[in-house]
Amino acid sequence: MSELLKLSQLIESEIINIKFPSSPCNLYDPLNYFLSIGGKRLRPVLTLLATELGGVQKEDAINCALAIEVFHNFSLIHDDIMDAAPIRRGKVTVHEKWNSNIAILSGDVLLVKAYQLLAKQKSQHIPELLTLFNKTAIEVCEGQQMDMDFETREFVTVDEYIEMIRLKTSVLLGCALEFGFIVSNNSISNRKKIYDFGVSLGIAFQIQDDLLDLYGNPDKVGKQVGGDVKSNKKTLLYLIAEKNAIDANKEQLNRIKNESNLELKVSAIQKIYDELGVRNETAGYLTKYYQQAIDLLDSIETENDKSAIMEMVNYLFNREH
Amino acid sequence: MSELLKLSQLIESEIINIKFPSSPCNLYDPLNYFLSIGGKRLRPVLTLLATELGGVQKEDAINCALAIEVFHNFSLIHDDIMDAAPIRRGKVTVHEKWNSNIAILSGDVLLVKAYQLLAKQKSQHIPELLTLFNKTAIEVCEGQQMDMDFETREFVTVDEYIEMIRLKTSVLLGCALEFGFIVSNNSISNRKKIYDFGVSLGIAFQIQDDLLDLYGNPDKVGKQVGGDVKSNKKTLLYLIAEKNAIDANKEQLNRIKNESNLELKVSAIQKIYDELGVRNETAGYLTKYYQQAIDLLDSIETENDKSAIMEMVNYLFNREH
Repeated sequence: MSELLKLSQLIESEIINIKFPSSPCNLYDPLNYFLSIGGKRLRPVLTLLATELGGVQKEDAINCALAIEVFHNFSLIHDDIMDAAPIRRGKVTVHEKWNSNIAILSGDVLLVKAYQLLAKQKSQHIPELLTLFNKTAIEVCEGQQMDMDFETREFVTVDEYIEMIRLKTSVLLGCALEFGFIVSNNSISNRKKIYDFGVSLGIAFQIQDDLLDLYGNPDKVGKQVGGDVKSNKKTLLYLIAEKNAIDANKEQLNRIKNESNLELKVSAIQKIYDELGVRNETAGYLTKYYQQAIDLLDSIETENDKSAIMEMVNYLFNREH
Repeated sequence: MSELLKLSQLIESEIINIKFPSSPCNLYDPLNYFLSIGGKRLRPVLTLLATELGGVQKEDAINCALAIEVFHNFSLIHDDIMDAAPIRRGKVTVHEKWNSNIAILSGDVLLVKAYQLLAKQKSQHIPELLTLFNKTAIEVCEGQQMDMDFETREFVTVDEYIEMIRLKTSVLLGCALEFGFIVSNNSISNRKKIYDFGVSLGIAFQIQDDLLDLYGNPDKVGKQVGGDVKSNKKTLLYLIAEKNAIDANKEQLNRIKNESNLELKVSAIQKIYDELGVRNETAGYLTKYYQQAIDLLDSIETENDKSAIMEMVNYLFNREH
């Protein structure tokens, strides 16, 4: 069994072991439900990988790894309310299955639960873990707010978009990895490198996600092609198209937003994107952040083996695009 | 100037000094707004009083005192969404002034901000402060869930009600006080006593609040008489009436709920409550928890002066009833 699979199974069994009281059931049933519907558990696996790279046993970091995963689940429950999302991981979302009030309050409890897990780490590490976790949690909220603001804004730049995905999704990967280096008492310089590695990795991964929506193999990606196009989502592809568009293209882009034949919409957008060199330019951004991540990982000074983390990187970027 | 006034002015000026970034403004404007509309700042004053009783400078506990107040404000922002409350402290609530999504997310940031303030305390105290804060935060959410559950439940016992107010409002007073004893390195035994003192004080205060709704002097209480009766709120008064009612009273109580003439409703309820001895029995509960609080305060072993805390107790229970 690969190291990654072992770590993710360890996390899964620990997540299932998180027990909430039986009462009040309207507070805790949603949490037992939401934590049990799975997910890839990438973030806590990153913590354990960094802990081992730091030269200590993964068991020493299990609680802060779980804190990261529990925080991530809190943010999904609240984001799903805000986005009015009916489905998450193929299952009904908490606010749909119960109601928004219950989703707000059980989300709140889950955020506190993340801090409770963090507090189980060794006393000597708690202040540093807490400081990094707080900063990250606030940035994730800022990213979510920017994402919501972008929906109603007429014009968003590529830089603003990348800053949004940095905050909304990437800093949590950086935090997850740096947790492993805090627990293993690594140097400040190495801590910064692994954090930045996580952030670049996260940005590259999100850009890949945008690319795969239109150019991925639907069998491998596991999603319909062009979902983002159909819902007029402002992805990096769209923002690059908008940036490169001359007046005629802009008119086309605007007109196509209201196209009710969704297959036609996707193929029309693909044609415009082809004219504007969108795929290549997006792939350029992906390569830039991917390479940044690899260089940062290389620069970490350690005698220990980086192959398990590289296995994770390969796993993340091995989807068809 | 009294010690209480000095402490509350110190807290007020520190709260005003909490600076949020200017952007994203939809995330931070609501927080600047909500923290600026005041409140009595009782909880952080309790922390500073306990710190001084513990024999150290109040400045040593300022950040954990602020954490308590910021947490309290987080819980109000989210509770106001759940209760669909239009007004708080005489001002429009966050979800009304902006919208529910903004109130959810800025509430989340405020909860993290509380932890950020906590993390500014001396490292040696952070693990214990964090553990107590986490437990308390979860209990406050449990109390809010019980309160919401009670609205739609047909029958609620007096014991269940007191457990609800213990969780929803009283444990935070206990936590605020114990924070002062953690920072001043007090004994475990004294820590438990001051925590329990805060919980009993909180329960007594909430019972007084229920009593004053119907039997207070409206000029002193600053609220209309019978607000809880008008909205059919299940207060301790109502639950005691229900407990003591014989069939004929039960029918009356049920009928009166739908009375549209609110003045008539209040006077009819008062008449039923008089028949059922509700005021005296509620006052009995108030006295019991008030006395418990005083006894616990007395039992704290210290050479230091308890008069400032007694001044606070007198302030809290000096309203007309």
